[in-house]
Amino acid sequence: SNTQDYTEQTVHTLPLYLTQHAPAAMEILEAVEPEDLDCVEVGDGNLNLVFIVTNKYKPENQVIVKQSLPYVRCVGESWPLTLDRAYYEYQALAAQKAACPEFVPSLYHFSKPNGLIVMEYLKPPHIILRKGLIQGIRYPTMAVDMGTFCGKTLFLTSGFALSTTELRAKVEMWSANSEMCALTEQVVFTDPYMEATNNRWTSPQLDDEKKAIEDDIELKHAAAHYKHKFVGSTQALIHADLHSGSVMCAPSPQATYVIDPEFAFYGPMGFDTGAFVANLFLAYVAQPGHPHRGTDYAEWILEQIATFYAAFERQFLELWNDPTAHTGFVYGRNTLHSPEAVARAQQSFMKDLLADTLGFAGMKMLRRIVGIAHVEDLESIEDADVRAQCEKHGLALAKTFIKTAPLISSMDEAIQLARSFKK
Amino acid sequence: SNTQDYTEQTVHTLPLYLTQHAPAAMEILEAVEPEDLDCVEVGDGNLNLVFIVTNKYKPENQVIVKQSLPYVRCVGESWPLTLDRAYYEYQALAAQKAACPEFVPSLYHFSKPNGLIVMEYLKPPHIILRKGLIQGIRYPTMAVDMGTFCGKTLFLTSGFALSTTELRAKVEMWSANSEMCALTEQVVFTDPYMEATNNRWTSPQLDDEKKAIEDDIELKHAAAHYKHKFVGSTQALIHADLHSGSVMCAPSPQATYVIDPEFAFYGPMGFDTGAFVANLFLAYVAQPGHPHRGTDYAEWILEQIATFYAAFERQFLELWNDPTAHTGFVYGRNTLHSPEAVARAQQSFMKDLLADTLGFAGMKMLRRIVGIAHVEDLESIEDADVRAQCEKHGLALAKTFIKTAPLISSMDEAIQLARSFKK
Ligand SMILES: Nc1ncnc2c1ncn2[C@@H]1O[C@H](COP(=O)(O)OP(=O)(O)O)[C@@H](O)[C@H]1O
Ligand SMILES: Nc1ncnc2c1ncn2[C@@H]1O[C@H](COP(=O)(O)OP(=O)(O)O)[C@@H](O)[C@H]1O
Ligand SMILES: [Mg+2]
Ligand SMILES: [Mg+2]
Ligand SMILES: [Mg+2]
Ligand SMILES: [Mg+2]
Ligand SMILES: [Mg+2]
Repeated sequence: SNTQDYTEQTVHTLPLYLTQHAPAAMEILEAVEPEDLDCVEVGDGNLNLVFIVTNKYKPENQVIVKQSLPYVRCVGESWPLTLDRAYYEYQALAAQKAACPEFVPSLYHFSKPNGLIVMEYLKPPHIILRKGLIQGIRYPTMAVDMGTFCGKTLFLTSGFALSTTELRAKVEMWSANSEMCALTEQVVFTDPYMEATNNRWTSPQLDDEKKAIEDDIELKHAAAHYKHKFVGSTQALIHADLHSGSVMCAPSPQATYVIDPEFAFYGPMGFDTGAFVANLFLAYVAQPGHPHRGTDYAEWILEQIATFYAAFERQFLELWNDPTAHTGFVYGRNTLHSPEAVARAQQSFMKDLLADTLGFAGMKMLRRIVGIAHVEDLESIEDADVRAQCEKHGLALAKTFIKTAPLISSMDEAIQLARSFKK
Repeated sequence: SNTQDYTEQTVHTLPLYLTQHAPAAMEILEAVEPEDLDCVEVGDGNLNLVFIVTNKYKPENQVIVKQSLPYVRCVGESWPLTLDRAYYEYQALAAQKAACPEFVPSLYHFSKPNGLIVMEYLKPPHIILRKGLIQGIRYPTMAVDMGTFCGKTLFLTSGFALSTTELRAKVEMWSANSEMCALTEQVVFTDPYMEATNNRWTSPQLDDEKKAIEDDIELKHAAAHYKHKFVGSTQALIHADLHSGSVMCAPSPQATYVIDPEFAFYGPMGFDTGAFVANLFLAYVAQPGHPHRGTDYAEWILEQIATFYAAFERQFLELWNDPTAHTGFVYGRNTLHSPEAVARAQQSFMKDLLADTLGFAGMKMLRRIVGIAHVEDLESIEDADVRAQCEKHGLALAKTFIKTAPLISSMDEAIQLARSFKK
């Protein structure tokens, strides 16, 4: 991608940029002059700059500016990365906003050459869900909201809603976000299963576990199957980075937002639902490392997994049963219309989707324990022996999901496995 | 697509066109002046014009010119169809020629605005395979050649040979051939399973059979599954119209050529292997309508199915076992390298591919019996009762393949079913 017209923004340059180029953002801010604006950089992610912009005179009026850098932020300029990801993030946010307006921030401005998005600021007490789980916060509707988000965005961007021609046009466009897909393919589907310099694990406690993964033919076979599915299946526009760090919540009803879909592309639905449950299972296995929260918080997390998945299935089937939403070619109404036919299709599709969800969940869990990028839920456990114990619990569950997902008959059974694997 | 720069060629205009625009073709013809050339139109297809061009003074020197019309030829200008299909046909021929040069005609010229391809003329005794089968010709290597063709083209254009990024770039390009895909989706995957004005069948003999298809929930469910797979799986560059009318053969060794890939796109491999075996099974069930050939010709056809599929699997696995060919991400060598791991992967992949082959074969057979476009093998049986009897045999087999493909453990078992279903 072209970096010629690109200007990396700073807290000093951004006010003028917004005044000159982002009228809708200025309107939301109710600001006119660059001097009206205060900027602060708050990005905690691995890849991009994030600024909060505030109207000095009306401090309630704030927006977020997210700008992509032409390299991986946490590595530096030595690892270049396409600026186009901002374009895909913007397009994905717009598509998700259209499908599920209640849980996606509003969009105010986009510049392709600058890789820059201006969007709604999700104010405190909204924080990143992962941080909230680490603090032991109980969110009243987060799990249901996320189920609704997945149900709506996955159904409405898929062949359940689109004609084959519409779907192919989407696939054509999203296939070009391949540099981001390649990152996922490497860090989720490949590196953790081999010796790769990027891998990291609690050592020496998990050395044998890591070796066992590299020697486990059944596991690597299943992993290869999921990789093929990730690349070769164009079911829906998936967020493709739907971990608990891509969700912001406040502890009040319906205060849930999904952000950061820069990895989005047309892929298998189960990769999103799987990513989300994976991160809840990781939060669960981390609980013995955070004993002050009590065992009932661990159980609360497991409940959220069940609640999330039930809400997802409910939302998905609600749309499927609605002829104004189920307008696409998948199990098309022109041939499958009797209640019996629909029931059969729904049962078999949801069964396969559960298997994909659990299989991809296992892949996402495993890579967070022995791959390049770990999760704070586990990293924040200071005692390495305690942490390793939690990680072993997570690995056992991950491997079972990867190897036997199609044999697990319900999310409740998966949750029961998580409980029973605890030492 | 743009028809502004398009000129429909006739036997009168083509000599000048070639002289002015197709120097490589003129070189092959060893011709210089338009007056050197004789043209005759020979297209027997449903969609396009096909000319044989001959050097009057060296009548051995001939080429084929294929030109797309901006509508469906057999219907007329009322059914417009994208000229771009010639571009995809040319790109597919080029890709197939690269993967399997021995069984694809040479290419001499392409004009995108004119939707016009000049290629090698496959001289008599080469004829369309379907015609040869109707004549009762026994081809010594056709089945092996077609297995080789499918093995090479499907493996070498897939993620077995390509990186994920290369594959996504191909998918991006081929997704735009969606108008042709939409045709297939309608005539193969949808119309035959419902009441649609385009459907045709031997009536009244098959009236009950057609009705039973529309009422068969299990069948329509399986058909919907294969439709989803056709649209949502991007395994390899498939020919996508690989019936016996897209193959030209002479009754001598290695005299086999695949033509007419204008429907090509990135789809499931089994759609090609399935199309080819479907047309052989249709030729088989038609045999009682052509009694002069004797029962041993029917058995010869079944043998060709077994030979084709064995050759396909042999070729595919030979490439998979070759590290210079298996350079892609599918079951990548970086994680799966032990002989045990490779054996496991090969067994499981080939099992799934056989199921896809038989499932898609069933879809292709059924649509040729109750859908819009029938096959001459059956249509040429004049006695409607005899024809209906053959068609019922074909339908029973098709439905079994569609409903139970994953339970059929080998191509030999499928062939045995074909024998046993004969009344
Ligand atoms: N709309 C928003 N409102 C409030 N905070 C935000 C918003 N978008 C991003 N952030 C903050 O910035 C951080 C990084 O943003 P994110 O989109 O996840 O970037 P990255 O792609 O670098 O991970 C988030 O974790 C969050 O703390
Ligand atoms: N390269 C060739 N050599 C000889 N005959 C050809 C060649 N290509 C096409 N033909 C003849 O023209 C007919 C139509 O060509 P085809 O490519 O199948 O067109 P369509 O797309 O209209 O079906 C074929 O059935 C065959 O008889
Ligand atoms: Mg982020
Ligand atoms: Mg494009
Ligand atoms: Mg991000
Ligand atoms: Mg043809
Ligand atoms: Mg054709």
